[in-house]
Amino acid sequence: MKAQEKTAITPTRVEDYPEWYQEVVKASQLAERSSVRGCMVIKPWGYALWENMVRVLDDMFKQTGVKNAYFPLFIPLSFLEKEAEHVEGFAKECAVVSHHRLEKGPDGRLEPAGPLNEPLIVRPTSETIIGDSFSNWINSYRDLPMLINQWANVVRWEMRTRIFLRTSEFLWQEGHTAHATKEEAIERTQMMLEIYTRFAEEYLAMPVIKGSKTPSERFPGAIDTLSIEAMMQDRKALQSGTSHFLGQNFARASGIKFQNAEEIEEFAWTTSWGSSTRLIGGLVMTHGDDDGIILPPRVASAHIVLLPIIRKPEDRSRVMEYTENLAKELKEKSYHYRKLDVEIDDREIGGARGWDWIRKGIPLRVEIGIRDIGDESVFVGRRDKSHKDKISIKKDRFVGEITDLLDDIQQGLFERAVSFREAHTKRIDDKKKFYEFFTPENQEKPEIHGGFALSHWCGSEECESKFKEDLSVTIRCIPFDSDSEKGKCIFCGRPSSRRVVFAKAY
Amino acid sequence: MKAQEKTAITPTRVEDYPEWYQEVVKASQLAERSSVRGCMVIKPWGYALWENMVRVLDDMFKQTGVKNAYFPLFIPLSFLEKEAEHVEGFAKECAVVSHHRLEKGPDGRLEPAGPLNEPLIVRPTSETIIGDSFSNWINSYRDLPMLINQWANVVRWEMRTRIFLRTSEFLWQEGHTAHATKEEAIERTQMMLEIYTRFAEEYLAMPVIKGSKTPSERFPGAIDTLSIEAMMQDRKALQSGTSHFLGQNFARASGIKFQNAEEIEEFAWTTSWGSSTRLIGGLVMTHGDDDGIILPPRVASAHIVLLPIIRKPEDRSRVMEYTENLAKELKEKSYHYRKLDVEIDDREIGGARGWDWIRKGIPLRVEIGIRDIGDESVFVGRRDKSHKDKISIKKDRFVGEITDLLDDIQQGLFERAVSFREAHTKRIDDKKKFYEFFTPENQEKPEIHGGFALSHWCGSEECESKFKEDLSVTIRCIPFDSDSEKGKCIFCGRPSSRRVVFAKAY
Repeated sequence: MKAQEKTAITPTRVEDYPEWYQEVVKASQLAERSSVRGCMVIKPWGYALWENMVRVLDDMFKQTGVKNAYFPLFIPLSFLEKEAEHVEGFAKECAVVSHHRLEKGPDGRLEPAGPLNEPLIVRPTSETIIGDSFSNWINSYRDLPMLINQWANVVRWEMRTRIFLRTSEFLWQEGHTAHATKEEAIERTQMMLEIYTRFAEEYLAMPVIKGSKTPSERFPGAIDTLSIEAMMQDRKALQSGTSHFLGQNFARASGIKFQNAEEIEEFAWTTSWGSSTRLIGGLVMTHGDDDGIILPPRVASAHIVLLPIIRKPEDRSRVMEYTENLAKELKEKSYHYRKLDVEIDDREIGGARGWDWIRKGIPLRVEIGIRDIGDESVFVGRRDKSHKDKISIKKDRFVGEITDLLDDIQQGLFERAVSFREAHTKRIDDKKKFYEFFTPENQEKPEIHGGFALSHWCGSEECESKFKEDLSVTIRCIPFDSDSEKGKCIFCGRPSSRRVVFAKAY
Repeated sequence: MKAQEKTAITPTRVEDYPEWYQEVVKASQLAERSSVRGCMVIKPWGYALWENMVRVLDDMFKQTGVKNAYFPLFIPLSFLEKEAEHVEGFAKECAVVSHHRLEKGPDGRLEPAGPLNEPLIVRPTSETIIGDSFSNWINSYRDLPMLINQWANVVRWEMRTRIFLRTSEFLWQEGHTAHATKEEAIERTQMMLEIYTRFAEEYLAMPVIKGSKTPSERFPGAIDTLSIEAMMQDRKALQSGTSHFLGQNFARASGIKFQNAEEIEEFAWTTSWGSSTRLIGGLVMTHGDDDGIILPPRVASAHIVLLPIIRKPEDRSRVMEYTENLAKELKEKSYHYRKLDVEIDDREIGGARGWDWIRKGIPLRVEIGIRDIGDESVFVGRRDKSHKDKISIKKDRFVGEITDLLDDIQQGLFERAVSFREAHTKRIDDKKKFYEFFTPENQEKPEIHGGFALSHWCGSEECESKFKEDLSVTIRCIPFDSDSEKGKCIFCGRPSSRRVVFAKAY
């Protein structure tokens, strides 16, 4: 029985981090691999989490004037080809629809029939197909800004997949905006990165670094790509949201033109920005421990599970009544944007029941037995503390202080993640030390990496690619909040005016 | 200018109903055809409507214990082939993915590369792929019932498409459940039809007839298909939601087995049920008039538009302040499951502005001018009344009674649709009259059809197919609420025990 093991997840993070990740996702019942290559099944516990994330983000977008819409799943090949860098970026990994029916072949087996004149690509992203609509919708400066978002599935035929982090199909949102001026488009690009930052930090309790990508790491076709980067517990970086300033590239490609106030025709300035189910992988790797995942209360699939403890059959009705009344009381409470989600688990499976919920990462487990009822108490376990650390609280106090308690867990998770990142972020000014920091043999454990290095870089692609070749380390971003500081490129010694973030990345 | 025309939509319903439908969808800004064959773009006004519909239905499902999840977009051909009737039903119209990248061909143009070993079908429905998961998730009777729903896009390669009603890609929900007993599965099939009925009638204000499909109209692979059928204003039927009892067919095909309480292995009993963006087409054709669509308040994209009237520049600040304060007051009000959605339209485009909102079907238009302010009044136009019928109401009363007013519109739309259906439903016992009823030459107007005929049918596929051949009329359903009544099949004269609903259908 799991309760007797040292940890609920085998292997532990230090034993084998990649394997721990696969196991923890499985044990948490968030998602699983499907029978379809590279695609996942998002199970109810994982989907409820995603629904909460969608709700919060969607509301943030709408507050800035963005409206949702829906565009075709399929992109004609000729559309994708409109922007040269763009098609180059996605051609190597896309699902191609070539036929529109099945017919019995000579051997009596069904095979593709009805070939299409032009192949259709299952959208890997929708700049070109949405650009086509924008070119029809936008005529005058009065039609601008156009602020559209789409919640959708997209497909990128990744050769090596990892659940949530890199799957052939994933769920995401993609925002697409068009503006009359460059300045306004840049402002929107930054505004959306700010939203991703707030969402990651305040809801996922995942601290992030905001910055610009280097030219080699930009979205195919973008002028500038901004991203937020988080540190996972193996000290690798996870790009957790991107916002692209597309200049007039896609407007030219799709013919998005408008008449300005002086009646002169101009190309619009566009942006796009996205975040995906990948964030769930980030959340798992930021907060999970060797007993399973830990869900931040503000997005948790459910907040509290009530575990009635019935030792004698004759206690059942009294315990269940108390449990159901407590559930009712709790469900009336609001926590941020929703009412409390309360589960009751009355399965008679002993200690395994509590461990199920620990692995699933529910913020609070509440045991209710005859003794607790007599004492008007509940016995509460917090997922952010050790599973042995349960405490008895008067029921009324528990109900009265429940939202503070949840916010305390939320805040604690964030602070823990900030401390972790700080502990594994080093300012490195010496090339030898830089190589040591990122050399696997120097790590305490396999697959636990150096961390974030804040180092000077001259700005050349040459130096950037050298680190990538030697160490598989990339520049995650040029952070917005790094102070201007004179230094020398850690690789070539040429002058540099600020530090950038180097790390291994997912 | 539209305001000077007789109607805002050309042609009118009686002039050319199919063309009216296309025009009204376009003019309402709900959706439009895309550049991708058979696929639509759902525009913000249409998508907001869909979001409200999703929210209500989703909540209804969850209240019965259903949980959401997400399954792969792609179905391996071998999965689809597991159920013989099923694959037969979908093979003729499916998008086939054959390759996973693009490569430059001999002529320098990109072409499909990386052929797949097994073709993948873009899901037309997900029984087989979800069945695969169920076969892994279900082991014991304790795992049952399994109650899952998915909100997703699906693709059926229709040769003749019509926006919302029949598109190659559409958005829908598909519920899939597995049960230990036949009775429980049948009960769930009926329960979900009941939910569709409540949703259609109480939210879409669309009266429906509940019933069973005849064997020839069943879902491919189902034992029984239940549906709700609504009458459009051209008197054709629209199937608006279906719920299928699948028996053990799909459980056998996918290996969904469980150990019962006696530890004997059995196949589960499954159901599936779906409703889609097609409902939006139904809503348009149930309530729309020759000025545009009419949105039922409970699902409307927005409830009220405020139209400040500024005749002199010096009035602007006073009128806008009054307008914004009114918007704020209204937005604090709850109407069913959400706060009131209030739009302010201060574009200076004269009468065209009001007509825009009439075409878009917003339930209430509120004009605010200097005189109204002096009088502490507002000037209100209801979309369900003539556009000339505007009335002045004291502002406080308008705000105080707003939810009653909206429910009055909702109720009125429903009653009007019920009356319409009743007026065009005939009990017909004579074959000649039946043919007359459905013969186009006998209609007052082209493309306005007979209506619903309640007639006796012997139960044979022979008679059923004869009507279909001769008149393109099908049995829409065998209604649940038709009384047992002795009669003779209107076609062959053999005995019949109840009337069924005949109609032309979308």
